[in-house]
This record gives sequence, C-alpha cells and structure tokens, in this order.
Amino acid sequence: MGPHPAVAAIRLAVRRVLHDVLNDLARTPAATSTTATTCALSDRPLVLAACSGGADSMALASALAFEARKLGVRAGAVTVDHGLQAGSTTRALDVVHRVRDLGLDPVEALGVTVGRQGGPEAAARDARYAALDAAADSLGAAAVLLGHTRDDQAETVLLALARGSGTRSLSGMAAVSGPGGRYRRPFLLLDRETTRKACVAQGIDVWEDPHNADPAYTRARVRHEALPVLEKSLGRGVVASLARTAQLFRDDADALDQWAVAAAREAAVDGDPDDALDPAKLFSLPSAVRRRVLRRAAIMAGSPAGSLFSRHIEETDRLITGWRGQGPINLPGGVEARRANGKLVFRRTTAAE
Amino acid sequence: MGPHPAVAAIRLAVRRVLHDVLNDLARTPAATSTTATTCALSDRPLVLAACSGGADSMALASALAFEARKLGVRAGAVTVDHGLQAGSTTRALDVVHRVRDLGLDPVEALGVTVGRQGGPEAAARDARYAALDAAADSLGAAAVLLGHTRDDQAETVLLALARGSGTRSLSGMAAVSGPGGRYRRPFLLLDRETTRKACVAQGIDVWEDPHNADPAYTRARVRHEALPVLEKSLGRGVVASLARTAQLFRDDADALDQWAVAAAREAAVDGDPDDALDPAKLFSLPSAVRRRVLRRAAIMAGSPAGSLFSRHIEETDRLITGWRGQGPINLPGGVEARRANGKLVFRRTTAAE
Repeated sequence: MGPHPAVAAIRLAVRRVLHDVLNDLARTPAATSTTATTCALSDRPLVLAACSGGADSMALASALAFEARKLGVRAGAVTVDHGLQAGSTTRALDVVHRVRDLGLDPVEALGVTVGRQGGPEAAARDARYAALDAAADSLGAAAVLLGHTRDDQAETVLLALARGSGTRSLSGMAAVSGPGGRYRRPFLLLDRETTRKACVAQGIDVWEDPHNADPAYTRARVRHEALPVLEKSLGRGVVASLARTAQLFRDDADALDQWAVAAAREAAVDGDPDDALDPAKLFSLPSAVRRRVLRRAAIMAGSPAGSLFSRHIEETDRLITGWRGQGPINLPGGVEARRANGKLVFRRTTAAE
Repeated sequence: MGPHPAVAAIRLAVRRVLHDVLNDLARTPAATSTTATTCALSDRPLVLAACSGGADSMALASALAFEARKLGVRAGAVTVDHGLQAGSTTRALDVVHRVRDLGLDPVEALGVTVGRQGGPEAAARDARYAALDAAADSLGAAAVLLGHTRDDQAETVLLALARGSGTRSLSGMAAVSGPGGRYRRPFLLLDRETTRKACVAQGIDVWEDPHNADPAYTRARVRHEALPVLEKSLGRGVVASLARTAQLFRDDADALDQWAVAAAREAAVDGDPDDALDPAKLFSLPSAVRRRVLRRAAIMAGSPAGSLFSRHIEETDRLITGWRGQGPINLPGGVEARRANGKLVFRRTTAAE
C-alpha cells in the first residue's frame, strides 16, 4: 500500500524540485572540475528546509527527509526565532528537536532582530531572509526550500491588489527566487489543506504561528476574513484563480521587463557621461514600457526600489509626455530626474540617509 | 453660490468627455467637408446618455442636459427594457418621462430580448449593447455616455480576478470603447456615492435596479458582500486601488498586444498561402507574447474569442515549447492548430455550428 495521497503529493512536489536543484548543480562549472569527481560523502549537496513548525513547513521537512535519502542529497533545516513573542526561543528549540526527529541534519535555530522598516510584516520578512541567506552561505547549502502554498500565493496577490500595485507585485511569489535561484517553493501549486493532511497522516505534530490568526496583521485578516468571503461570493475556485492569475502576471511582467531593458539601451544617448536618455525615443514607447524604463533608470541612479511609488514615476513621466519646461523631479534616495538640453538625466544630488 | 460639490463633479466629468467628443468630430473628414459648413441647428451633434433610472445614470443624464446646452450639443437618452421582470416596461416608460423632464430629447425606450448565452449577466449585457448600438445608429448619435463609476470598475476587476482571467480582462472597462469609440464612461474616476449625492442635491428621484441587490447575480454579491469585507480587511482604499490597478493592466495589455502584432508579422512564413507561422521564431518570444500571438492567430482563423480559454492556448503553445510530433490541437469554432513541415498553421476544418 502506498503512502496517503497527501503524503504522496508533498513528496512528489519536493522530488521535482530536488531534481531541478541537482540538474542546476550539474550545469555549474564546479561540478565538471576535477575536484568534483573526487568528492567524499560529506560533499553531497545540502538542501535546507525553512521550518516554522507549522503544517506547511513540517510537511516540507518530512518530504525533504524522505526524498533526499533516495537522491543522495543531505537534508537539513533552519528555523527562525523572530524574538517577537514571549517563549519564542523555547519554541524555536522545540522545532529544532522535532525536525531532527524527522531525520534532518544539520538543523539550526537562527535568532534575528526585527527592525521597523516598512511595517511589522515587511520587517520580519527582511530579517528572516537575511538570516536564511547567512545560514545558507555558512552551511554551504545548494538550496533553501520554503513551504509557501497556493493559499499563501492567493493571499499575496490579494494584498498586492489592495495596495494598487502593478503587475510585478501581483505576480506573487516565484517558484525559484533569491541569489542564484537559492530559494525554491515546492508547494506553490498545493493547497494548505494538503500539507495539513500530510502531517496528520504521518503523525507529525504541528504548531500554528499565533501571528497567522492575529487580526493586527493584514495577512491574517486576508486569510481569515477576506478570502473566505470571496470564496462565498465568487465560488470555491478563487484561491486557484488568484494563483493562476499570478503566473500570468509574472509572464507579462517578464516580457515587459525584457522590452524595457531593450528600450533603455535603444534610448541611451550615445557616449553621454550621465547615462542620459533621449526623450523623443522614450515618447514613442507604449506607456507601460516607458514607465518601466524610467523606474529602472531611477533605481540605477540610487533610488531605493521599495520607496519608489507609481506617483513618482508618473510625475517623472510627465517630463516626457507633458513637457512644458518644468523643473527637476525629486525622487526617493536623493535622486533627481531632470530634463535639459534635450536629454533626460537621473542623478543623485544628495547622499542618501 | 455654485452648485453642490457632487453636482460640480459630475458636470465637470461630463464636460470633459463632451469636449473630447467634439474634438474627435472636428478631426473626422466629414467635419471639414462642404456639407458640414452649411449645417442647420438640427445637425448639431447628438450625444445620448444610457439611463437605467438608477443614481449613476440619472446623475449622468442631468449633467449631460446641463453641459450640452452650453456646448451646442443635443442631449438625448435611451433606456433599455430587458423584459426580465414584471412591470419592466412600465418602469422603462417612467424612466423616459423622468429623463425628458430633465430636458433631454430625443428619449427612447428600447425593448430587448435577453438570450441565455454565457449566463444571465453576459446575455443581458450583450442584448443591451446591441440595442444601444442600433439606437445610436438610427438616431445618428456621435456618442453614448455610460454611467459606470469607479465602484463598478472595482467590481469588474474583482470578478475577472475570481475567474483567473488574464491582464486584458483585469483591465476592466475602458473610458472609451465600442465601434469608433462610441461609448464613453465619464464617471469611471468618480465614486458611486458622488452620483447619489448629486441626485439628492438636484432633487432627482432614483430607482435601484432590484438585480443590483439580488444575490443570485455574482456582481451583486461582489458589491454587497465581497467588497465591503475587503474594505474592512484591507482598508478603505480597496476600491480606488482596484480601479488604479485596472488602468495599469490596461497599459500593460496594450503594450503586450502591440508586441504581439509585430511578433506575428515577424514570425509569418513569407508568401505562405495558409498564413503559416515559423515555430522557431515563436519559440524565441517571451511566453506572454507568444501566447498572445497564438490567440490572435486562432481568432483570425475563426475561433470565437469568448470560447477560447487559456487551456486551449496552453495546449497550442506546447506545439512550440514541447514539440514531440504531437497531432493537431482542436480549438473552438472548428479551428485546428497543426504543426507540420516546419510550420504552424491555424485553419478551420469544419463549419462552425
């Protein structure tokens, strides 16, 4: 008798991703060098599961333990202690023990300090990824698996939509992301419910992060209020639709970014020391492409992507589409966009704080 | 003392659109011909308001009556009797009288027969636009104004999202649409509440379409259940964000369509009698562009746009990205996509039903 269908589903999802990781490793130059041919058992690639102790990530850790054995991969895990709740360190150590019991090794608890930049959720996320990056580097991990499900994807899209964000934000989380494609999300096409069932079927205890149910957090409100009502009003397929839409947005955003890169090259004023752009060439672009060119130029001049809102880009765009001799536009990070002498120039005028 | 702010807002919105309509008329060849120079008063352009009797469209009719006088435009109106409820004809005639009282002339009630194609809401919409088109033609109207507000736009985006639709559907309703840009939506940036206030301030009675509150209709559920909960969970700016996002999607979709048209031309096999496409050239395109090229080719071969779903396009796309000698793909409307002899051909194989 085979495993429970939910267990089979999580294992298949992780197996596919491990195959991708191994294929990618085989393609890197190191794998074809002479040192690679003499590698010891301890040189087998290490793959980490990021594990909070919840159903998603405990299911992930269990599937990684099972599949890694068969593929000659070392399976490890890390858990992040955000230090935001009393007892969080005890909790993190408990997760470490439980994940070790699944057969993963090494397993580390990473303590982080959460700042305030961008709100509590963004600050916690930034601290978490910084810790995961550092751990992956120090442990020499080939990849870090994240337990985000299709439900998380739907929530991400809905949050981006509520902010009036553009196509890129609405494309949600990528299956592969981070430096060198280090982060992988095997469960992005699986329901959260499947990971819960897989834990129950394997007798794995899970722990729900109380933040997930805390209505002070926007994501918790989306999960427990907004999505259930949307499913009631619009039908049960809403989560799947939102996740599918995210993929379409991702493809659209990729294509438009590709166009913007080519258009920026095309609009560059030859030999200009300030990387100036030709307003006439920008004017002839579709607005969706032109705005992306302007956004890229502002970021390259030093404007922080996270502080650069669409109103900044729209104001800059009027230097092209509504030119009447207006002065320079001030952008975040002490960058200004100025049109003069038939050229559009982005430059930093003050040191960023 | 000027008018109530809500009245000023609806008038300004309509005035801007009338200016656009007059500018467009001035640019058409007829306006520069000799017959145009000898036009009588009855040859002043006619602009119609589509009026259901609700607050949005009664506000629209009142603003059109006021602004048209000042701009030398004739203001008329049409109301559609869908015949779906007992007493709907009496109701339509009542709307005709009330709109005439606002000073509009001509005002006509258009009886339509609603079919079943695509569900009750789509069928009612199709019948309504067919009647509006016919009325605009027979009355010689330069434009038909529609009372859709920013709230309607947000609902449209949410409905498209729930269906997992692509960027084009998510771009919602256009400010200008229809044959020759006949339909104009002056209130797309105004809240529904503004139109209600404008009616109250002018002492205009309004009538709410009971369909708007009937939970059997998906749009009514979005309006009365989904959006209020989203506003509660995500903040009051949700409607504005959804409407803003729609505009970004529209720009993205326009740019990608432009690319797809150029890419289809580029990928055409020179002199091929079947309008064949070169699979190698299609392969090198970003997937968002390639799928649009394939969709356009299918439609041009006779596949009805409304029946062509993304799964059809994805299957056709595998003739390019996953080619292993598979047979032709059957598409709606008796169209097949077939790869053979190094060419991709779309053709109709059977008469459409």
